[in-house]
Amino acid sequence: MELSEERLIEAIARVLSGEEPGVVVGMGDDAAVVRPGSGEVVLSTDLLVEKVHFERDAIAPRDLGAKAIVVNLSDLAAMAASPRYALVALGLPADVEAAWVVELVGGMRDACAEHVVALVGGDTSRADLVVISVAVTGEVAPGRALTRSGARPGDALVVTGWLGAAAGGLAVARSADPAKWLSEDWGRELARALDRPAARVGEAQVLAAAGATAMIDLSDGLAKDLSRLCRASGVGARVRAADVPVAPALLEGAEALGVDPLRLALAGGEDYELLATIPPGAVEPVRSELRETFGVPLAALGEVVEGQGVTLVADDGTETPLAPDGWDHFA
Amino acid sequence: MELSEERLIEAIARVLSGEEPGVVVGMGDDAAVVRPGSGEVVLSTDLLVEKVHFERDAIAPRDLGAKAIVVNLSDLAAMAASPRYALVALGLPADVEAAWVVELVGGMRDACAEHVVALVGGDTSRADLVVISVAVTGEVAPGRALTRSGARPGDALVVTGWLGAAAGGLAVARSADPAKWLSEDWGRELARALDRPAARVGEAQVLAAAGATAMIDLSDGLAKDLSRLCRASGVGARVRAADVPVAPALLEGAEALGVDPLRLALAGGEDYELLATIPPGAVEPVRSELRETFGVPLAALGEVVEGQGVTLVADDGTETPLAPDGWDHFA
Repeated sequence: MELSEERLIEAIARVLSGEEPGVVVGMGDDAAVVRPGSGEVVLSTDLLVEKVHFERDAIAPRDLGAKAIVVNLSDLAAMAASPRYALVALGLPADVEAAWVVELVGGMRDACAEHVVALVGGDTSRADLVVISVAVTGEVAPGRALTRSGARPGDALVVTGWLGAAAGGLAVARSADPAKWLSEDWGRELARALDRPAARVGEAQVLAAAGATAMIDLSDGLAKDLSRLCRASGVGARVRAADVPVAPALLEGAEALGVDPLRLALAGGEDYELLATIPPGAVEPVRSELRETFGVPLAALGEVVEGQGVTLVADDGTETPLAPDGWDHFA
Repeated sequence: MELSEERLIEAIARVLSGEEPGVVVGMGDDAAVVRPGSGEVVLSTDLLVEKVHFERDAIAPRDLGAKAIVVNLSDLAAMAASPRYALVALGLPADVEAAWVVELVGGMRDACAEHVVALVGGDTSRADLVVISVAVTGEVAPGRALTRSGARPGDALVVTGWLGAAAGGLAVARSADPAKWLSEDWGRELARALDRPAARVGEAQVLAAAGATAMIDLSDGLAKDLSRLCRASGVGARVRAADVPVAPALLEGAEALGVDPLRLALAGGEDYELLATIPPGAVEPVRSELRETFGVPLAALGEVVEGQGVTLVADDGTETPLAPDGWDHFA
């Protein structure tokens, strides 16, 4: 790549289209300046590093850019916040083509546009690996941020969408012959779940409005993230195996891939679905609204109980502790 | 390192001391929640990557942590903003010791405390290189952010502190025998300038109050950053070589290091001093105030002119174009 930092920033600025509401000073100065809203400010950051979070030759740069934004927006969604602004810091090796960077930034722009987020600033530098760091700001009405710590015994445990698909996508990518599975509908669907997750921003608003008591996004797997929510709330939980919403494409491809679909749904990471605790009476109304408004299912897969730890209840009624062995970036 | 992500975040949280004013939800949830101020919000991010921005064995982790915060606060200072909150995303290789991480985060805490910044959130993950990404928010009275684009012909060109010291520190580190030069006062001073720069946050407020028309922080060297400011403002500039504030320690060590001190002061990066354009009549009052309040000198080293490009005026009156060959991360 024969790009100076100066020219790269110019190229990125061209991809990002001009004026955005609320932006006083956009990209290109020492920092961005934006007008505040009336609510509390929600802040989050997430890092994607080559060889740990992605392989450069295994994901399209446009998908990677969108995913880098989405995983951050998912954190804001989990607080029931509305996303507003994004900052991007890129580390780029010398062998990265300018076209790749433009695609990457294009994917970021797409994901920002979908959620009416303004990409207001950034930083680029050389690095021996592709490093994508995104920071986002959002807004929430004062006192309305939904933390992990409000779950109460008796609450229903619900999760949006389907689980295990991203882990299935990883299984496809790491299989002996990915191309073979990518020729199947289920294979493409799993790969897409891994490469192009959705941020459940609107869904989070519905859950919050229905009186959700705690919420977390599933980045490291249901088992691990549920155990985090339980610890923060000082409660335990029971999960019915039969009600875990295993992704249909994963059920279809599990035998070919040689994976246990329930295990991936419980311990696989990167689904970016929302796990929330809500009053039992809210389950049906929320389910209807999510289906009608977003076409997204809601699974009621267990309940919050007193005590601590998570129990998995098998179809035959046997109970086992569910270890928080979700996907750990350090494992 | 036998640290899970979970335990690492717990260790980091212990280093960071509890409650901060304005923080509704601090570290440990999906995102942080803070109360907004009354001003506009200023946002910036900067990435430090091992082998590009630092060598792990050449800088103490406490200095590195402080520097990662300071380079971000410097961007806020350059907008005349008051820093408020910081987010940190860390990528850590397997061979990093837990003690190293705790020192790193301790340095971040020190730098945040010095500027009354709350470190409210973060993310850690595995990476093949140490990656430190920081994002900061600040506040500025509506309409008072100081951009790069307001310089007018006739304005005086001023710079805080001394230049070239960080580049001198790099020359020490890259010399055949760093230990030899580090036994000299000037050597330690240059090394410290590189490892532990200051963010000129208060100084920026003084410059802004005195009617500064444009400001930028010197991260990539005077020549390059001045040319950026001139381009953004649609003006040119003349710099008097005799008035460039070359760091005394650099003048003292230049011969031993075999470097041209003026060249390092013009083109060396990472000084993080402020370059501003101010009305000529404001130079003396600002100089007095910076000296008395912060003990920091102010050099008036040239003026803004019509046209474009930067001219260097030598001691004997000869004029040469000053190429923007500051330190480019991609060069």
